[in-house]
Amino acid sequence: MPQEADTKFRILFAIYPGMTHLDFTGPHQFLSRLPGSDTIVASPAGGNVEADGLTFGNTVRIADVRSCDLICVPGGTNATKVALDPEFMREIRRLAQGAKYVTSVCTGSLILGAAGLLKGRRAACHWAYAELLPIFGAIHDPARVARDGNIITGGGVTAGIDFGLTVLAEIGGETLAQTVQLGLEYAPAPPFDSGRPDLAPPHVRARYETLRQAWLPERRADAERAAALILATAPA
Amino acid sequence: MPQEADTKFRILFAIYPGMTHLDFTGPHQFLSRLPGSDTIVASPAGGNVEADGLTFGNTVRIADVRSCDLICVPGGTNATKVALDPEFMREIRRLAQGAKYVTSVCTGSLILGAAGLLKGRRAACHWAYAELLPIFGAIHDPARVARDGNIITGGGVTAGIDFGLTVLAEIGGETLAQTVQLGLEYAPAPPFDSGRPDLAPPHVRARYETLRQAWLPERRADAERAAALILATAPA
Repeated sequence: MPQEADTKFRILFAIYPGMTHLDFTGPHQFLSRLPGSDTIVASPAGGNVEADGLTFGNTVRIADVRSCDLICVPGGTNATKVALDPEFMREIRRLAQGAKYVTSVCTGSLILGAAGLLKGRRAACHWAYAELLPIFGAIHDPARVARDGNIITGGGVTAGIDFGLTVLAEIGGETLAQTVQLGLEYAPAPPFDSGRPDLAPPHVRARYETLRQAWLPERRADAERAAALILATAPA
Repeated sequence: MPQEADTKFRILFAIYPGMTHLDFTGPHQFLSRLPGSDTIVASPAGGNVEADGLTFGNTVRIADVRSCDLICVPGGTNATKVALDPEFMREIRRLAQGAKYVTSVCTGSLILGAAGLLKGRRAACHWAYAELLPIFGAIHDPARVARDGNIITGGGVTAGIDFGLTVLAEIGGETLAQTVQLGLEYAPAPPFDSGRPDLAPPHVRARYETLRQAWLPERRADAERAAALILATAPA
């Protein structure tokens, strides 16, 4: 019954090798509970996608996806490398332009940026990478879930769960979101309070910052190259 | 260098078709960041495992896993059906008996119970299924992460993240756990406060309870059959 299929709300996750898998699986677990929706998992080449030691199988080749109502791009430590793949960026731009909602989790917003979708728009990002957003003309929003028009973006990794609930409420209503929250027992109780730089103990923050300063210059250089590619390829 | 491999801390996730995937991916994302560890994903038949519309590929057949230091069993709405698979229960019991830590998330504790591992032990479970734990001789602990000796169990689905952090601290120390928490930006900010029955709005609780009463009798009957199988097969 193709008619029925056409009325379903199509949620597309655009994933890639090297992503941080929880950026994807967190919101997927919540959003796939939206009644009357279809969830599609696509990747640049289709087939198997490796991430943090897991293999996600049976993904669709993104070029074969006709359209979607919501696109969600997860992040990864390699997001600025992925941003340098002009074909993947073109597919993300194409699908985003036809979507009702354009979304990301974590450094996925850098990929939305590299697809030319965040010029002058506010977006969330993983705190350690957020300073790269302006390279794509975006404005960093420090919120855990940020909204600017039809663009809804989550912060780092686990923010994808708060993002998923927010999007569920937007599309399916508050009662649905709260029922899914109850079903997934989302009443977080972290044993430590170290999830943001302003919360983390100084020695933890310092340890992380040392690592970050080592990898940041290369990520910045990649982001700058990716931004130059947008200028070269994006429609005016 | 087999000698080096032998010194690694072996973390085994024992997954199965129909699991709730976030029960697995949440703690996997945290635990796979333990330095000096190997993470193995095993399933009853090996190969592809389908869960909530995702395919987890390249899993190892659990009977082919020699040993592990930590076993973690995720939950699923079909946990009491999985508990009726005597071969899978036997493998879980074998691997748990050689492990330093025996763990679960969500209804995974019902599977540990069906493997005969929770007699007289306190364990957490998804709130909607927790009343089935005593069928396996276990005592329900309403904590989000419960510990009884070498048994560490998490509550429903998203509790797997609090569980993962707790286990990381136990094995790798508090500074490591806090650094991973910062890296995965785990400073939760749920847009609603509906993640436990005592928190959920009455109409949300009522909606869920109606569904729960419909499926609970079959799950209870399965659990009772699984418990009878332990009596028939477990070592005295």
